[in-house]
Amino acid sequence: VGELVFIGLGLQDERSITLRGVEETNRCDRVFAEFYTNPMPDLSLQKLEGMLGKKVHILSRSQVEEDPIGQILTHAKTGRVAFLVSGDPIIATTHIELRLLAEKNGIKTTLVHSSSIYTVAAATVGLQLQKFGRAITLPIMEGDAFPESPYDFLAQNKKLGLHTLALLENRPDGRHLSISDALQALKNISNRRNDHLLGDESLVVGLARVDSSSQMVQGNLLGELMSLDFGGPPHSLIIPGRLHFKEAEALHVFAHVPHPLLEAYL
Amino acid sequence: VGELVFIGLGLQDERSITLRGVEETNRCDRVFAEFYTNPMPDLSLQKLEGMLGKKVHILSRSQVEEDPIGQILTHAKTGRVAFLVSGDPIIATTHIELRLLAEKNGIKTTLVHSSSIYTVAAATVGLQLQKFGRAITLPIMEGDAFPESPYDFLAQNKKLGLHTLALLENRPDGRHLSISDALQALKNISNRRNDHLLGDESLVVGLARVDSSSQMVQGNLLGELMSLDFGGPPHSLIIPGRLHFKEAEALHVFAHVPHPLLEAYL
Repeated sequence: VGELVFIGLGLQDERSITLRGVEETNRCDRVFAEFYTNPMPDLSLQKLEGMLGKKVHILSRSQVEEDPIGQILTHAKTGRVAFLVSGDPIIATTHIELRLLAEKNGIKTTLVHSSSIYTVAAATVGLQLQKFGRAITLPIMEGDAFPESPYDFLAQNKKLGLHTLALLENRPDGRHLSISDALQALKNISNRRNDHLLGDESLVVGLARVDSSSQMVQGNLLGELMSLDFGGPPHSLIIPGRLHFKEAEALHVFAHVPHPLLEAYL
Repeated sequence: VGELVFIGLGLQDERSITLRGVEETNRCDRVFAEFYTNPMPDLSLQKLEGMLGKKVHILSRSQVEEDPIGQILTHAKTGRVAFLVSGDPIIATTHIELRLLAEKNGIKTTLVHSSSIYTVAAATVGLQLQKFGRAITLPIMEGDAFPESPYDFLAQNKKLGLHTLALLENRPDGRHLSISDALQALKNISNRRNDHLLGDESLVVGLARVDSSSQMVQGNLLGELMSLDFGGPPHSLIIPGRLHFKEAEALHVFAHVPHPLLEAYL
């Protein structure tokens, strides 16, 4: 009987997998990985394979989503298969669906967790996780089209005084939504709606390559942040709601937000 | 110059630390840990010390919160100190404050992340993380007193169709809020307010000792779940909002929810 073990790689590099993740991979007959949902800038495939002592087969989006039977499940039906995923696995919808499909095919599934951007982003800047509303994903804009629903959720959070984590899309071909393009798109919607929720004077925090050696975290007025080059992906944003005074202090120390900007959010 | 390295232990046992966590601990002169914010049922201190090759000094709540200078910061001022914490560190307010205090005292702080109940709970039952509203903590009841604000946040989430993760309090003395006591308290508030948000017929999911060898996960009607013994801590709850059909399928497969109960939530 087969088994499919989802193993989180964390965010940083080949060393942000857990000890149990390494042990479980060693017990597997075949090791797959995907990096298209979230790139890991510091990860070296060669080092990862050397560490595990195993060949790691990288799968494309279509191999995971359109033909999961073709590779992963065919092997998992008769043997033990490890599927390495950046962050904590089973967060992306595509992994949930793969897990369900495996169970439907009589394949046992096991989860080996690691760190996720959902908690690490908040921890990095010192904001309280329990004061975050629902998180949103912002997609790469196609022409002028930008979906309204993530903005609706951001507006809901804002009205409740909650922080919002926005993950910016990464494409398998390497394209990604940058912090400045995301801010421009959000500002445009706010302007058009005339809701006064987001403008050049709003406090936002940009986070690039969180937990990597080239991590860049900077909070400032939206208008200031838009002209800053955050470099390569992955990018994310935190749009703060109301701040506890300890959170304001944390944003000053860990996201370099000038003190005077914080006062309006207390 | 000193350094304080916050290192996540994850949820499971001594093997849910990352490789980087082990390396960083090895570079430290002194190793502290606290387990009062969240107990780890499978962790063996002896195995952890054996694996790290270092003595681990367990700190009480008062040593971390009331006298952080006394132990942790005194050592971190002149040397490199590791502070091991269950889950992903810097999620609890007390760790954020300790990190701020360290920086104020000129001590460099570093974060080494691991998995957290905030993402693992959703992953375990296959619900989409982006459909969770703000998480809540429910405290042990003192007499009949139970705070209203977590219920207010739960009600907000419910009205927006969002899922809610509720973490149930653990005390340093080993006492903890059980799933059935938490459900009784929430039901009482709903009854008193007559808001029809939660009752015996509501779908809830109980999670005990998530990611440990004795993990227990069961979804059912609140009235049914209240009589179930989930065993020792830590306990948590998920109160689902509206379900995508894939989420309903996941709750059936991974939280054993009978199919007919799920239909009202689609």
